[in-house]
Amino acid sequence: LLSKQPAKGTKLPIYSGEVGPVWSYPEHQLDCVVADPKKGTKMYGLKSYIEYQVTPTTTNRPVNHRYKHFDWLYERLLDKFGSAIPIPCLPDKQVTGRFEEEFIKMRMERLQGWMLRMCRHPVVSSSDVFQLFVSYKDEKDWKTGKRRAEKDETVGVMIFSTIEPQGVQDLDLTEVEQKCDQFSRFTKAMDDGVKDLLNVGNEHWKRCTGPLPKEYQRIGKAFQNLSSVFNSSGFQGEASLTDALTAAGKTYEEIALMVAEQPKKDLHKLMETNNEYKGLLGCFPDTIAVHKVTPSPYSLRQSFRPKLHTGLMRKCAAIEKVKEGDKLVATSKINPTDKTAMTKRLSVMSYALQAEMSHFHTNRIYDYNLVMQQYLEEQVKFYETIAEKLRHAHSEFTTM
Amino acid sequence: LLSKQPAKGTKLPIYSGEVGPVWSYPEHQLDCVVADPKKGTKMYGLKSYIEYQVTPTTTNRPVNHRYKHFDWLYERLLDKFGSAIPIPCLPDKQVTGRFEEEFIKMRMERLQGWMLRMCRHPVVSSSDVFQLFVSYKDEKDWKTGKRRAEKDETVGVMIFSTIEPQGVQDLDLTEVEQKCDQFSRFTKAMDDGVKDLLNVGNEHWKRCTGPLPKEYQRIGKAFQNLSSVFNSSGFQGEASLTDALTAAGKTYEEIALMVAEQPKKDLHKLMETNNEYKGLLGCFPDTIAVHKVTPSPYSLRQSFRPKLHTGLMRKCAAIEKVKEGDKLVATSKINPTDKTAMTKRLSVMSYALQAEMSHFHTNRIYDYNLVMQQYLEEQVKFYETIAEKLRHAHSEFTTM
Repeated sequence: LLSKQPAKGTKLPIYSGEVGPVWSYPEHQLDCVVADPKKGTKMYGLKSYIEYQVTPTTTNRPVNHRYKHFDWLYERLLDKFGSAIPIPCLPDKQVTGRFEEEFIKMRMERLQGWMLRMCRHPVVSSSDVFQLFVSYKDEKDWKTGKRRAEKDETVGVMIFSTIEPQGVQDLDLTEVEQKCDQFSRFTKAMDDGVKDLLNVGNEHWKRCTGPLPKEYQRIGKAFQNLSSVFNSSGFQGEASLTDALTAAGKTYEEIALMVAEQPKKDLHKLMETNNEYKGLLGCFPDTIAVHKVTPSPYSLRQSFRPKLHTGLMRKCAAIEKVKEGDKLVATSKINPTDKTAMTKRLSVMSYALQAEMSHFHTNRIYDYNLVMQQYLEEQVKFYETIAEKLRHAHSEFTTM
Repeated sequence: LLSKQPAKGTKLPIYSGEVGPVWSYPEHQLDCVVADPKKGTKMYGLKSYIEYQVTPTTTNRPVNHRYKHFDWLYERLLDKFGSAIPIPCLPDKQVTGRFEEEFIKMRMERLQGWMLRMCRHPVVSSSDVFQLFVSYKDEKDWKTGKRRAEKDETVGVMIFSTIEPQGVQDLDLTEVEQKCDQFSRFTKAMDDGVKDLLNVGNEHWKRCTGPLPKEYQRIGKAFQNLSSVFNSSGFQGEASLTDALTAAGKTYEEIALMVAEQPKKDLHKLMETNNEYKGLLGCFPDTIAVHKVTPSPYSLRQSFRPKLHTGLMRKCAAIEKVKEGDKLVATSKINPTDKTAMTKRLSVMSYALQAEMSHFHTNRIYDYNLVMQQYLEEQVKFYETIAEKLRHAHSEFTTM
């Protein structure tokens, strides 16, 4: 809290917005497309890898990146912003089967999701390292930029020194603590909610791709089987019934296929979004721990983010430090001016957290609105198509 | 086959119809309603029973019958017509819980189904004993009629003596055998088909009333849970999302209820019809055995119909007897005139079986057409209602 401000570097202003403290947002939001995965080789074909094409809307010029480059970017962002901004993990590294088409498609989709989330963040997307990643000019530019980024000294809690709340009053300790507790409670509760939805979603996925379509298929087969038995009766006037019964049976077989394919069309996106949020929410405990040591259950989650040394963070948890401030002044370990500076710095940190939460909430409302709409739209289509198919099957029967 | 014709009794003509030999059908089909189950008591309240009201369309005057009266009727019909006409078993007798509302309702429904099937049969419905059952005038009339029916001597294979094919040629042994084999194959195949459908129907029922609605309920709860977490964010502009998310969650809870209730609305009737046919098809082996000894698997089914002594039937299986005819003539055990009479009688039996099969097929086509239409109609309604509910849930979200 008493560390010096870094000599240079971009300042990060925080403004007072309608919803509370907010980061400074660019006029045009950066966006980028991750596409066109290509297999590349190195060392005369001994080593092969997948390269993705990343095209930012700003330059509209594609650059190539391997997964390990994304991982490098993640590390830089985590070092630089991790104390103030939750940087979600990249999609899992997977060693076996990593050239399988399905896996590559899934990873690309998730890298796209991760990039989009980073693009949307005003602080991350405007940072030098992120700009380098999406728009380096050539190999030399990339190499030089990489070296510079790796030497960046504004890492860890240093980031707070660059944050400058504009036109807002300093917060007192109680306010800071209240906000901190509120965010902690919220992110914990949302984490539970998201995991709950993921659990039932997973079970539903299994049912929809496993036993349920099998059952519809068996119903379809049973109808068709009965139809072919009827057909063998040698009795006159079977045809109208047997044709209709066969059609009904085939309809249920079609429904079986639809049921099995449906999760990919709707549940998939819902699950992916919730998985992303699970990842993001898993970062909050660390971000909040910079402000205040929260009692576990969070400590269990640390395993997700080995790079942030929780022990270190705990020692410098800001609220506890400021609380100790008076004692430190009394025992002349720091002087009253330092104490005032510490409180002021804590206020800055709280504004940063509040700005981050505003950012999180805005995105969350947008994302969940969108994903729920997409989910329900596909569900409606699904049930309507089934109803339509069955209506047609029904019309094949003779009214008696 | 050489038994004398009974002295009196109604003759049962068989005509040559469009679909082959047919029974003589009445101009107006008898129908009756089984309704209004009432608890009655006997012996000063020591014994209690359920009495059903049976109202035939002919008299439109209700008569009361207990289950044991239906059972009595079943025994009479089986004795009298069982060799020529498959008389399906009554719904199971159940001792424990027989006064539970659900059980009474189900039994009544099944008795109704059984009565309807008997009413539809021209031979059964026009028989004295059946007419007595549905339209006895008073207790005395019932008692007298009961005694008379119990003394009826035209039982077992005697029924064939009353059957008179009109304006048709005698069939030769090969034709008879062919028809017999064809019916045997068909009823066996349909029996398998029906059981297959019943099996998958039962599993589907369990899934639809067990794990599936539970899952939809959990999805609904997960959405609502997330909504209430979002609501606690303290962030502005949550309401439009949280309200919509709650509505979506409630919709899935409603869907859960719909899924659980649906089998009663559609699968139930489909299963009941197939159960009826399973019962009916279980009677055919015995009916066919009168004509020809068929190798098992049918022998396993005999347990269903203890009243028809299969051993006896086998001994008098008509086709085998006629085949032995020449030998019997050669050894002077019967004379050639008897042999001719035997062949003629076999022809009559075959006409009876063919008339019965025509009756069966006609009813089967009607029943399956109807039940499939009802099933699909309800299924369409079900999926349309879900789609409609989800469309409404979707409209609650804000387009962004």
